[in-house]
Amino acid sequence: MRQIAERTAGFSGADLANLLNEAAILTVRRKKRAIGMDELRESIEKVILGPERRSNVVSEKEKEITAYHEAGHALVANKLDKADDVQKISIIARGRAAGYTLNTPRNDERLHFKSYFIDQLAVLLAGYATETKIYGEVTSGASNDLKRATDIARKIVTKFGMSDLGPITYGSDQEKVFLGKEFHDQSQYSDKMAEKIDNEVQKVIDKAWKISTETIDKNEPVLKKIAKELLEKETIEKERFDEIVGEVKKTKKV
Amino acid sequence: MRQIAERTAGFSGADLANLLNEAAILTVRRKKRAIGMDELRESIEKVILGPERRSNVVSEKEKEITAYHEAGHALVANKLDKADDVQKISIIARGRAAGYTLNTPRNDERLHFKSYFIDQLAVLLAGYATETKIYGEVTSGASNDLKRATDIARKIVTKFGMSDLGPITYGSDQEKVFLGKEFHDQSQYSDKMAEKIDNEVQKVIDKAWKISTETIDKNEPVLKKIAKELLEKETIEKERFDEIVGEVKKTKKV
Amino acid sequence: MRQIAERTAGFSGADLANLLNEAAILTVRRKKRAIGMDELRESIEKVILGPERRSNVVSEKEKEITAYHEAGHALVANKLDKADDVQKISIIARGRAAGYTLNTPRNDERLHFKSYFIDQLAVLLAGYATETKIYGEVTSGASNDLKRATDIARKIVTKFGMSDLGPITYGSDQEKVFLGKEFHDQSQYSDKMAEKIDNEVQKVIDKAWKISTETIDKNEPVLKKIAKELLEKETIEKERFDEIVGEVKKTKKV
Amino acid sequence: MRQIAERTAGFSGADLANLLNEAAILTVRRKKRAIGMDELRESIEKVILGPERRSNVVSEKEKEITAYHEAGHALVANKLDKADDVQKISIIARGRAAGYTLNTPRNDERLHFKSYFIDQLAVLLAGYATETKIYGEVTSGASNDLKRATDIARKIVTKFGMSDLGPITYGSDQEKVFLGKEFHDQSQYSDKMAEKIDNEVQKVIDKAWKISTETIDKNEPVLKKIAKELLEKETIEKERFDEIVGEVKKTKKV
Amino acid sequence: MRQIAERTAGFSGADLANLLNEAAILTVRRKKRAIGMDELRESIEKVILGPERRSNVVSEKEKEITAYHEAGHALVANKLDKADDVQKISIIARGRAAGYTLNTPRNDERLHFKSYFIDQLAVLLAGYATETKIYGEVTSGASNDLKRATDIARKIVTKFGMSDLGPITYGSDQEKVFLGKEFHDQSQYSDKMAEKIDNEVQKVIDKAWKISTETIDKNEPVLKKIAKELLEKETIEKERFDEIVGEVKKTKKV
Amino acid sequence: MRQIAERTAGFSGADLANLLNEAAILTVRRKKRAIGMDELRESIEKVILGPERRSNVVSEKEKEITAYHEAGHALVANKLDKADDVQKISIIARGRAAGYTLNTPRNDERLHFKSYFIDQLAVLLAGYATETKIYGEVTSGASNDLKRATDIARKIVTKFGMSDLGPITYGSDQEKVFLGKEFHDQSQYSDKMAEKIDNEVQKVIDKAWKISTETIDKNEPVLKKIAKELLEKETIEKERFDEIVGEVKKTKKV
Repeated sequence: MRQIAERTAGFSGADLANLLNEAAILTVRRKKRAIGMDELRESIEKVILGPERRSNVVSEKEKEITAYHEAGHALVANKLDKADDVQKISIIARGRAAGYTLNTPRNDERLHFKSYFIDQLAVLLAGYATETKIYGEVTSGASNDLKRATDIARKIVTKFGMSDLGPITYGSDQEKVFLGKEFHDQSQYSDKMAEKIDNEVQKVIDKAWKISTETIDKNEPVLKKIAKELLEKETIEKERFDEIVGEVKKTKKV
Repeated sequence: MRQIAERTAGFSGADLANLLNEAAILTVRRKKRAIGMDELRESIEKVILGPERRSNVVSEKEKEITAYHEAGHALVANKLDKADDVQKISIIARGRAAGYTLNTPRNDERLHFKSYFIDQLAVLLAGYATETKIYGEVTSGASNDLKRATDIARKIVTKFGMSDLGPITYGSDQEKVFLGKEFHDQSQYSDKMAEKIDNEVQKVIDKAWKISTETIDKNEPVLKKIAKELLEKETIEKERFDEIVGEVKKTKKV
Repeated sequence: MRQIAERTAGFSGADLANLLNEAAILTVRRKKRAIGMDELRESIEKVILGPERRSNVVSEKEKEITAYHEAGHALVANKLDKADDVQKISIIARGRAAGYTLNTPRNDERLHFKSYFIDQLAVLLAGYATETKIYGEVTSGASNDLKRATDIARKIVTKFGMSDLGPITYGSDQEKVFLGKEFHDQSQYSDKMAEKIDNEVQKVIDKAWKISTETIDKNEPVLKKIAKELLEKETIEKERFDEIVGEVKKTKKV
Repeated sequence: MRQIAERTAGFSGADLANLLNEAAILTVRRKKRAIGMDELRESIEKVILGPERRSNVVSEKEKEITAYHEAGHALVANKLDKADDVQKISIIARGRAAGYTLNTPRNDERLHFKSYFIDQLAVLLAGYATETKIYGEVTSGASNDLKRATDIARKIVTKFGMSDLGPITYGSDQEKVFLGKEFHDQSQYSDKMAEKIDNEVQKVIDKAWKISTETIDKNEPVLKKIAKELLEKETIEKERFDEIVGEVKKTKKV
Repeated sequence: MRQIAERTAGFSGADLANLLNEAAILTVRRKKRAIGMDELRESIEKVILGPERRSNVVSEKEKEITAYHEAGHALVANKLDKADDVQKISIIARGRAAGYTLNTPRNDERLHFKSYFIDQLAVLLAGYATETKIYGEVTSGASNDLKRATDIARKIVTKFGMSDLGPITYGSDQEKVFLGKEFHDQSQYSDKMAEKIDNEVQKVIDKAWKISTETIDKNEPVLKKIAKELLEKETIEKERFDEIVGEVKKTKKV
Repeated sequence: MRQIAERTAGFSGADLANLLNEAAILTVRRKKRAIGMDELRESIEKVILGPERRSNVVSEKEKEITAYHEAGHALVANKLDKADDVQKISIIARGRAAGYTLNTPRNDERLHFKSYFIDQLAVLLAGYATETKIYGEVTSGASNDLKRATDIARKIVTKFGMSDLGPITYGSDQEKVFLGKEFHDQSQYSDKMAEKIDNEVQKVIDKAWKISTETIDKNEPVLKKIAKELLEKETIEKERFDEIVGEVKKTKKV
């Protein structure tokens, strides 16, 4: 049951209700009498990632790229102290994603140091970095990772005061999306300050990029092993993943 | 049936239903008892491109320009490794287009490397490039090609992280067109960064332009042969097209 | 009937219905039994330009300026290879215009080279250029010509890829005027690029201006002859116009 | 009757109906049997300028300033060839204005040369210029004149092509105030071009200012004579005005 | 009755009706038979400033600051030729203000010279200037004064043509707040012109600041006398104020 | 009862009604017959901060960070002359906050000197500063403090005239959030002025930062003592807090 708890960390009551409902449907369909571990696991993934898209014909080449891409995410997540644990890797398309690495934050932590965000960025950039290493160029598949990484990097600089700009915020809050207010906030800083922000965001991305690529370079054999097994089996669970990498993630707090 | 499958790659269920409906209407009109290959082909084009506009009187000069323009698209699509196959070329006006080259992506690939996009851009710019070569100036007919090429080039730089700006995104997502949000995103980068983006987009267009013009220069006799036959017959199907070019497209993955 | 066809090139079905309706009304008012050539001609102009405003008292000076202005448009339209034919010139006020020169495109051409647009611009600027030549300054009457010329010049640069900026588009499409989208597109280029666009647009206007003024300078006697006859007769039809100019327009394709 | 016609030039049918209605009310109030010349004159002014505000207590100082301000407008209007005739000057407050000079354009001219606009600007700036001459500083009363002058100066530069920027327009049309469209047009020129426009507008204002101040300097005695009589009688009609100035305005066309 | 008239200058009919209504309520509450002078005075202040907030506990320190702040306004208003008369000073909180100085313009003047506005600005800045002098720093209580001063300074420069920018206006009119229009006007000047406007506004504020501080420096003993008496009595009426200052304000016109 | 009054300073009538209602509910739930001191205290906190979130599992590390963060706020609030008193410190999550320091302004003061705001900023930055000192980096938990500090710093510069920019305001008022108006105000200053504002805001933040860090450096042992006790007991009331710090806050006015 601990595994379920870990994988549903951050779930709201509605999410949990939804999860159990999905598991019940699955159980009935399989003509079982009680919801089992398998049904729970599958339902968790469906709730988080959307339904599998097995019917969707994916080319062998795309499978390979996806395998390397996800292997990159998983490897870097495993190697970095502050990154979240890897629960499962898969190259079965789900929702809009070609593959996925399921990471679950270790607890409901709400405070994070800059180093946590940098590690999180390094994990996000790892798919892109792996594609660069293996193929010499990247695919459009990393687009969403980049968008999420950029959003976090901008927050680090403009909301969390974690850059050389110091303890000050820039721009408006996501939560106060009121027309007139937004407009006002928009005019709150000069174009020169916008440039400084661009530069600081770039520095944050550069730092994460360095960590991500160095981690991949140092662990290339493991990376390839993960990718190869993913291509064969399509899915790797936490236990097997830890075996391949050869070490269980040491959870560091905050 | 394989040909039908290739030409309808990417069709949704609704598109397929629409297609069969069109084919059925055509079959009834022709007093046939069963939907044939011809009816399916015609219906596919109608669904993709809109109805033919034969009634529209087009001048001989315009037909010639269109023939060269489409021959350019088709030639470059055939010669570039990563470009999609040519299924059919036509100078019969359809919808708002004076002519068209029907390319079908070889499978439902969803991940593309930068080199794929560059080849796609080279194909898009090929009509414009051919007009420049043959007439020394271009017509307004390339306008839509340029718009599509610019959109892709901007995505390469600002969404896919495939330029010297690195693994970072700029500007908001097409999909999240919510007023207040958009406004916020708009202020996310400085005018200096906007300049850098302009420069990177220009570099992408320049690269594709070089490939497109060099391909056309190297294959000028074939280009003219295609254009001439198009002017005579108005339509060239895949089989005949491969004959003229003298080589069947070698499908490269991703 | 050919003349009617030429003058209604580009008319939609609704326009044609409207035209015949106007002609029928005119025929009944004149107690004729069948719609004649005169009624059709008058109706075509009414549909294109709006009703005549004879009741509006126009000063002699204004009539003279208008005569020179329209003579300029007509002369340059006649002399430039790619400009549309002159069907009729008039200094009778119609709708919001003090006078008009009726040009009909020779056929339904939809593709145009840059040289066509430059000639079209030269014709648009000819009224302004003639006022400058004859009076040493221009009137506010050229304002709409300038607006149309500027719109075309901007399209040449930002939509048709016909300037030194190359095969790329800038700014959003007129047709996609959706709030959020517009906003997004607006931020797509830097102020420096806006400057480059301004410069290219200026170059296009300069080129058309040179052609327009040189044509007027070379044909000054004919210009004055047209203006003088316009002032006397208020209207000149195609046949008479070709006589004055001394040469029938040679239609060049595209 | 000619006088009435001159003063109502530019009136719409609705304006004329309104005018006659006002005159009829006035006639009834005065227990006359037929609408007389006086009732028509008063009604014309009421329709153009709004009702008199005699009840509004105006200080002697303000009356003096207003007398000089209006005398300036009237004097410059009289002296400049292309300016409209002065019909009446008054320092009786009407609507929101402390005083007014009633100029009626000589006919329904719709075309105007740049020189006409410059003279019109010189007349608009004459109140401000007179205050400067007499008091060494200006009052807030010239604010509306400045706004109108600026609007005309901007049109000269951005709509009429009458500046060194040449035959080109900038910015959107007043008449097409459609949200999305406006936004698009707004982005049509660079900040550098905005600077050039600012400079050209300044040059236009400077030119009109020079004409206005020189005219006032040369005719200072007449200016003071007009102001003095205005202060005494509150109103000067065209006939008396021409007597004071010593010359009837020579109407120049266009 | 003259005093009432002076204090209600600028009142609309509705304001006067409201005033009498308030006075009647007060009269009834006091069980008087007729509205007296006192009731009128109190009602005037209530209509202008809102109800008193005696219940609101104000610290001694705040009272002292307010006394100095208001003494500054009143002193400078008294000393400057063109400033409005002081009717009453109070440190009883009313509406949102901690205290107030009641100035009534001497008549319904509608025209004002720049010198009038400069004096008005000097009075507005006097509270801020006095706080600076007495405490070496200022409180947030001057915020509304600064906002009003800035608005006037901007109008002097951009609407009244009273700066080195000359007889020209910038930006749109407050009264024409129509969406599309505003947008258009907004783009009417360059960033460089915005800088020039900023500089001119600064110069206007600097000039008024100099006058304000010099007046306070020269009259420090009187300032302290007013502040002291205000702290004791909370309110000073016109008659007593003129006694303290030692001179009755000489009303200068315009 | 004085303690209650202090803690509810600034409460509106509605707030007080709400407070009593909460206290009554609590009293009934506890089966008491009259609202007691405890119920009032708890209700005050609930009204100000939202309900406790004890159910939310918080990691030990997060508790420690929160303890240091809140200890920083409380220490600096105690040491600075103009900062508000500390009423209570807690690391029990409430609403969206991981912990809180309850400060109550000493009275309803409405006027504040710049020095008051600087001290207030120093207190706001103290959590961030303490995290920096103890951990060498900061968490995302300071984000809201930074936003509030930036808002105050901007007001100091653009609304209160307390920077080197002088007695002038920039940008629009929060209270007048009317679409068209906002837009207008937005254009009221140049980008260069926006830069100057950015710089002044930075200077204000720098000054407060210096005070905050110096206060923390000088009182490190006390800081650690507060944090340690907070970690043990989760909550420290005013009386105990004053004991630990070793001195009761000397209230300075304004």
